Amino acid sequence: MKLYEYESFPSPRRVRMFLAEKGINIPCEQIDVPAGEHRSADYLSKNQDGLVPLLELDNGEYISETVAISRYFEENYPQTPLMGTTAEEKARIEMWQRRVENSLANTVATYFHHATEGLGEPDRYRNREWGEKNKEKAISAMKQLNNQLAENIFIVGDKFSIVDITALCAIDFAAAVNISIPIECHHLTRWYAEVSQRQSAAA
Amino acid sequence: MKLYEYESFPSPRRVRMFLAEKGINIPCEQIDVPAGEHRSADYLSKNQDGLVPLLELDNGEYISETVAISRYFEENYPQTPLMGTTAEEKARIEMWQRRVENSLANTVATYFHHATEGLGEPDRYRNREWGEKNKEKAISAMKQLNNQLAENIFIVGDKFSIVDITALCAIDFAAAVNISIPIECHHLTRWYAEVSQRQSAAA
Repeated sequence: MKLYEYESFPSPRRVRMFLAEKGINIPCEQIDVPAGEHRSADYLSKNQDGLVPLLELDNGEYISETVAISRYFEENYPQTPLMGTTAEEKARIEMWQRRVENSLANTVATYFHHATEGLGEPDRYRNREWGEKNKEKAISAMKQLNNQLAENIFIVGDKFSIVDITALCAIDFAAAVNISIPIECHHLTRWYAEVSQRQSAAA
Repeated sequence: MKLYEYESFPSPRRVRMFLAEKGINIPCEQIDVPAGEHRSADYLSKNQDGLVPLLELDNGEYISETVAISRYFEENYPQTPLMGTTAEEKARIEMWQRRVENSLANTVATYFHHATEGLGEPDRYRNREWGEKNKEKAISAMKQLNNQLAENIFIVGDKFSIVDITALCAIDFAAAVNISIPIECHHLTRWYAEVSQRQSAAA
């Protein structure tokens, strides 16, 4: 088993942090995305979308998509559950996972690709206005998360979950492109400080 | 238990079709989104995002997000599995679910909201160029699905899954906004005809 990833990107970090929380170690291979390695014929034969992360299974099959890879490990290593145990808990975590992805992780990525130099790909389509609009959406999402964290230790109640991983990686990536947590968001700042100190955050 | 939905929208249809495949009947209440009912204080107290579909549980809790609602029923009614049974199958279905959502369902929705009249909301931000770009992405996604269906009965192998529901509802919504399956996509057309004839497609 092997994880293809690129260390400085937020999506592979989500998988590394997920694995670290579960105490799972697997070999990683770096795909140098800025250098274009994800567009090589060899890599595209493994993942038609050319995205990282990508999990290679021992049977030679491949699983792409951050949450799909996470689910594979959640099912095989149900100890330290990060995606819920009861039907209602699984659904609530999925609900928040989708909310945080749509409102924060994806909007920060859109800002990065459309309103900044992004990966510096000269032929990439950019829509600067849409990028800037997504920066507004990202900041608005941080304020909503702040409200949720006023009454919850973690994003989904009192248990750490995959949603906290998604949000932490998105917020750190936002900071890297100069989108900061609004200063008045005390609850989000409290949560950020706590989750950043988990050992898995350094994975 | 009750499902808040709006019958002509693709996301609520995904839930209705998922329930029909499992033979589950629950009461539905229509939220007239074009008339603005999703923005009422009452509805926002149930779902802060103001989106349909929304599931009200018997304990008074609410679950939003199409796939979160689907997961709730998948967990409680594991007969007729639509999200996989083994770890690898669950991961593979999640991978394709994400691919179809990102490349097709979301791009068609973006085209609808940004490049057409959409819901006719006068104060809604629109970026027509981004909308048109997403139409291109949607057509490209149909071609990729066509390739996948050249060698598979359903999108994920030989079993009908939630991914087929997501794709069917996206393609029907695409047709409603005049984005058609490219004529050369014979495999996608074959699959579309077959899946459209399932009883659940009329739910």
